[in-house]
Amino acid sequence: MSIQEELAAIVGAAHVLTTEDSVSRYVTDWKGWWTGKARAVVRPADTAEVAAIMRLCHERGQPVVPMGGNTGLVEAAPPSRDGDEVVLSLERLNRIRSLDAVGFTMVVEAGAILQSVSDAALDADCFFPLSLGARGSCQIGGNVSTNAGGVNVLRWGMMRELVLGLEVVLPDGRIWDGISLLRKDNTGYDLKQLFIGAEGTLGIVTAASLKLFPRPTQLETAFLGLPSAEAALTLFGRARRDLCDLLGAYELITQPAMDLTIGTFPENRHPLSTPAACYVLLQTSVSGGLDLRPRLERFLETAMEDGLVLDGALAESEGQRAAFWRIREDLVDAQYRVAPIHLRTDVSVPQVKLAEFIAAADAEMAARFPDLRPIAYGHVGDGNVHYNVLPQPDLTEPVTEHRYEACETMLFELTARFQGSISAEHGIGRTKRHAFLDVTPEVELSLMRGLKQLLDPKGLLSPGRVL
Amino acid sequence: MSIQEELAAIVGAAHVLTTEDSVSRYVTDWKGWWTGKARAVVRPADTAEVAAIMRLCHERGQPVVPMGGNTGLVEAAPPSRDGDEVVLSLERLNRIRSLDAVGFTMVVEAGAILQSVSDAALDADCFFPLSLGARGSCQIGGNVSTNAGGVNVLRWGMMRELVLGLEVVLPDGRIWDGISLLRKDNTGYDLKQLFIGAEGTLGIVTAASLKLFPRPTQLETAFLGLPSAEAALTLFGRARRDLCDLLGAYELITQPAMDLTIGTFPENRHPLSTPAACYVLLQTSVSGGLDLRPRLERFLETAMEDGLVLDGALAESEGQRAAFWRIREDLVDAQYRVAPIHLRTDVSVPQVKLAEFIAAADAEMAARFPDLRPIAYGHVGDGNVHYNVLPQPDLTEPVTEHRYEACETMLFELTARFQGSISAEHGIGRTKRHAFLDVTPEVELSLMRGLKQLLDPKGLLSPGRVL
Repeated sequence: MSIQEELAAIVGAAHVLTTEDSVSRYVTDWKGWWTGKARAVVRPADTAEVAAIMRLCHERGQPVVPMGGNTGLVEAAPPSRDGDEVVLSLERLNRIRSLDAVGFTMVVEAGAILQSVSDAALDADCFFPLSLGARGSCQIGGNVSTNAGGVNVLRWGMMRELVLGLEVVLPDGRIWDGISLLRKDNTGYDLKQLFIGAEGTLGIVTAASLKLFPRPTQLETAFLGLPSAEAALTLFGRARRDLCDLLGAYELITQPAMDLTIGTFPENRHPLSTPAACYVLLQTSVSGGLDLRPRLERFLETAMEDGLVLDGALAESEGQRAAFWRIREDLVDAQYRVAPIHLRTDVSVPQVKLAEFIAAADAEMAARFPDLRPIAYGHVGDGNVHYNVLPQPDLTEPVTEHRYEACETMLFELTARFQGSISAEHGIGRTKRHAFLDVTPEVELSLMRGLKQLLDPKGLLSPGRVL
Repeated sequence: MSIQEELAAIVGAAHVLTTEDSVSRYVTDWKGWWTGKARAVVRPADTAEVAAIMRLCHERGQPVVPMGGNTGLVEAAPPSRDGDEVVLSLERLNRIRSLDAVGFTMVVEAGAILQSVSDAALDADCFFPLSLGARGSCQIGGNVSTNAGGVNVLRWGMMRELVLGLEVVLPDGRIWDGISLLRKDNTGYDLKQLFIGAEGTLGIVTAASLKLFPRPTQLETAFLGLPSAEAALTLFGRARRDLCDLLGAYELITQPAMDLTIGTFPENRHPLSTPAACYVLLQTSVSGGLDLRPRLERFLETAMEDGLVLDGALAESEGQRAAFWRIREDLVDAQYRVAPIHLRTDVSVPQVKLAEFIAAADAEMAARFPDLRPIAYGHVGDGNVHYNVLPQPDLTEPVTEHRYEACETMLFELTARFQGSISAEHGIGRTKRHAFLDVTPEVELSLMRGLKQLLDPKGLLSPGRVL
């Protein structure tokens, strides 16, 4: 029997896809920058089927790559170009197994869409804080496997901090049932940590138990114009102290990024009447009926008196709040619209050094890459900036891949000088593998290779990603 | 050369202790329940010396056990009774390397005392939230290695969530410099997770970078009498929603525990005029000048109207707040005072089931162990209860070890029925090793053994602990 026939014996023929048409949405990454070939796409219905697939592939020496919503940005999920990999889609494991609005916990399968998980929490008067642009199509299993970040990290942490337990199918097909509703458990090594952020190279996450929080009863959202990124950092330091630990999001948008999103999508109207060097989208939220508005207004008044904020608008309606957020979220699409091929980075530096980092990068760009323009924005509260690089609008020649690589090398060297990370949230995947191997000390690589060898001695799970 | 001489060549003869007198405080655990024998106690001055010691011991096949403040409760730190282990004390690595009050980070060495770390944070107008009874003598390295919990977990998480990075000496003497000031870093596997909560069996933590928070500008502390543990859980659910995510601690003290602490230390005056079935010590805090008092008062008024709270006192001064906390914290000493040998447990169950668990345990105790009395208290907000067992006061015969073991077995079986953990925060060490190996599924044990083999193939680091 062929591997396709054996897979069909496990999941049914309808759930083993092999034709070019049926596999097309699984073999190309979201950005359209990577297209591979799949031996087959297999769509199991439950954990037992995932385990049976993995046992089979382990015996046969068949490489497998798990796929969630395929919204990753580092080309990890789509199959290799050799056509030797089976894509294991988790999309049919999409149930919400349980939700406890008293104990503030939820158990969901890997294929559940983040938005549906968030909605289910809200329906139960709870709140699941993970939020990112791809929330309408990314899946919880992928969020776990990439340790997803997003706009609410500064208050609630990354996905790692939101996971209480995991169910994982190991590369050899064994099932580890680590679903737990416990807030505290110090029995032995914390195995779930191995699989969070491992980008599907150590095991296949099939379900997760998650922390929930009270549904906020009030949200306050402000769009601010500031004289500099430095001012945005100073304001953030104040906000941490003065907004009562209730600051949920603090996003920076530099002027070029603002011009791009407004210019590309004119329906995004500029919320402020005066332009500024950079903008901050700030959100606080609270449960329990506390009124945050007067406190936020006073905070902003003082900041304006001190020249840290030039102009600002507070959302007066849900519609206005959504409009503020659309400006931020449309940035990603705007870059692809203007320059289908460009350089994306996702670096972090110690939070207090972020403005200095941006200034240093801008200076290097102007001196060495005048043909390219930076579009910088990001999660300033976490020291994380998406410092992306597009062609200058008036450029007539296409930018070569080599040119982008040189620019990336410059940015990564700068990041290293700032004791930063070349990947704050997107991960390594295929696109950053070489840079990652270059900058990572041998002692770390040897431990990571040891972990890979321990969990996946045949090297069949997501080969060529991360390590 | 003997191993002692070789150690002296690394750290100087003054820092290799071998006489009975000089080693005595290192060979007996804090409770006085375990006394071992050390081949030597070695006190390195810095990370390089720790590395040199580990290289030497790795070559010589010499077992080593790292020791922090020796305040653990599972007999992990003191050496074996065979006298074959070298105790490596981290106490001289006690510097605060750096503190950044703007970026809210701190880098401290493993031997720094928790209280001195907390004080240094407060001095810089910051806050390090880890707080437990042993804070005056426990050390940060031990807090990391045991993933310490304590009274502030429900808002700020356990030690795992407070660590940004680690410096670790591996069993073979290699140094992994994973000190990081980054809030987000998704480059490869998150190696620090391996060492947090590993109880010193996978590597020796020599330094840690930590998250800080704004220093609270207001604390509100209430001592409440409630009709039942069930009411305490209902009240907690309300508190989560109504106290604006600002609830820091929520401790339960059952009536027998209250009687014990007041009876043993009469200077602890009962804060309430009417006795109750159980008590809750609740604390909220905030930075930024928000006034929590009226909100807390209203919350408690409603709870009293609804019969969830029978009586309550709000701390009116720092002295009164300290007195409330002393009642809770003196509980530990009171148990040792009344019964130097007793049974300590540290179980957790899904938080909503905690009252049900306590009731079930009380029923089993009354039916099967009438000679023993439970003293239960704990971190209710985390589903974590210290359900300890002492002899009945009128008991004339001493309780045998076997009797306590039978009682522990009953409690652990009950914990399993509630999908709980036999160790929420204290860890496994030596005392819970057999129970841990009994209840842990083979797939988990095989992964944990694989991690141990990967990091410590010769099995020389803290042998006989955890696995």
